[in-house]
Amino acid sequence: MAGNPSQKRATPVKRLPHKESHDRRDLLEILHRSRIAHVAIDDGGPIILPVAIAPWRDGNEVLLHGSAASRLFRKLSEGAPACISLTILEGLVLARSAFESSMNYKSLIAFGVGRTLEGSEKEEALLALTEHLFPERSQELRASSEKELKATTIITFPLDDYTVKVSDKEPEDPESDLTERVWAGVVPIAQVLGEPIPTSNLDPSIPLPGYIDRWR
Amino acid sequence: MAGNPSQKRATPVKRLPHKESHDRRDLLEILHRSRIAHVAIDDGGPIILPVAIAPWRDGNEVLLHGSAASRLFRKLSEGAPACISLTILEGLVLARSAFESSMNYKSLIAFGVGRTLEGSEKEEALLALTEHLFPERSQELRASSEKELKATTIITFPLDDYTVKVSDKEPEDPESDLTERVWAGVVPIAQVLGEPIPTSNLDPSIPLPGYIDRWR
Repeated sequence: MAGNPSQKRATPVKRLPHKESHDRRDLLEILHRSRIAHVAIDDGGPIILPVAIAPWRDGNEVLLHGSAASRLFRKLSEGAPACISLTILEGLVLARSAFESSMNYKSLIAFGVGRTLEGSEKEEALLALTEHLFPERSQELRASSEKELKATTIITFPLDDYTVKVSDKEPEDPESDLTERVWAGVVPIAQVLGEPIPTSNLDPSIPLPGYIDRWR
Repeated sequence: MAGNPSQKRATPVKRLPHKESHDRRDLLEILHRSRIAHVAIDDGGPIILPVAIAPWRDGNEVLLHGSAASRLFRKLSEGAPACISLTILEGLVLARSAFESSMNYKSLIAFGVGRTLEGSEKEEALLALTEHLFPERSQELRASSEKELKATTIITFPLDDYTVKVSDKEPEDPESDLTERVWAGVVPIAQVLGEPIPTSNLDPSIPLPGYIDRWR
């Protein structure tokens, strides 16, 4: 499940196998909680860009959303081999030494070649992106125009060759550090949504939709 | 300030110049608020890994922290050209159409070759990393052992060839969409620290340090 064995990529996971997760629920959780991925291609040297994403095909693929005029998306459309990375920070791990101190996280790294979506598949994917980033809002929004669809590129990226890592632990201090008179534990990190700010030209008779409360 | 003009990299910023920031305060804010960077190198294809970071040399460089045994850090130490990306999501931008809907963010993308730190410079950098990720905590922690220092690699990465992008806006709906009967505005995104969780073998007479309250 976690990758194509014919690919011999030596990520740090190969050295720290206790962090690698083969539980599909971890993969799905990372996909469902992430709004962006970092995407790298080789363009005369490595280049990374953050892009908006959504899970696709029951988590077997990821949608990448960008401008048709973007160089990254043009290269991806042309079949450039890419690496995508999704990272969720979950906590600061305060051990009794600097060396053992770390962060808890869930991460997904995947390798592959994307495929540009067209026609009805593209329209479906755009809906999936809108529903992932702005759940329940699609039904309120007008349909995209032909011109808008043309200006948008949506790439589907395979999740065949990937690694999921989960670090969800207490500090792992060696026995010899347990006598240190210093607090140890975990400080959780969470991403939260704040109070919605109406745009300056909003008709004040339009109420805040109930779904925004559900996002929060 | 935002990069070496001899490098002609066409990031999307070249098409959307209104997003590019030349204000050094934005660069410094991104560095100070980020705990990780995504780092890409070419290793028989692009590969990205998330790594812990800290600002260095007044924000002219970034420290990358990793294991001496990690393949990424070995490659970086050998002078592999790299790209690093720091991204802070700041809000969901709810426009009156799917097409204009987006996210507010601040991001830094930098290109360069890192340099491995050794000796007293490495010890200073380790202190800077600990203080960045766990402010005020260093004074409570024992010194790192020789063995721990050896197991750690710290790379300093230059900020000479970089781009800072800031998207901090209201929805930009075209005139023709202003009659849509749909709420529009921004929902802020923030990263927050939760209630500290003491580790299971903590001596209960050790109080929670005051600095953790200051982090929150």
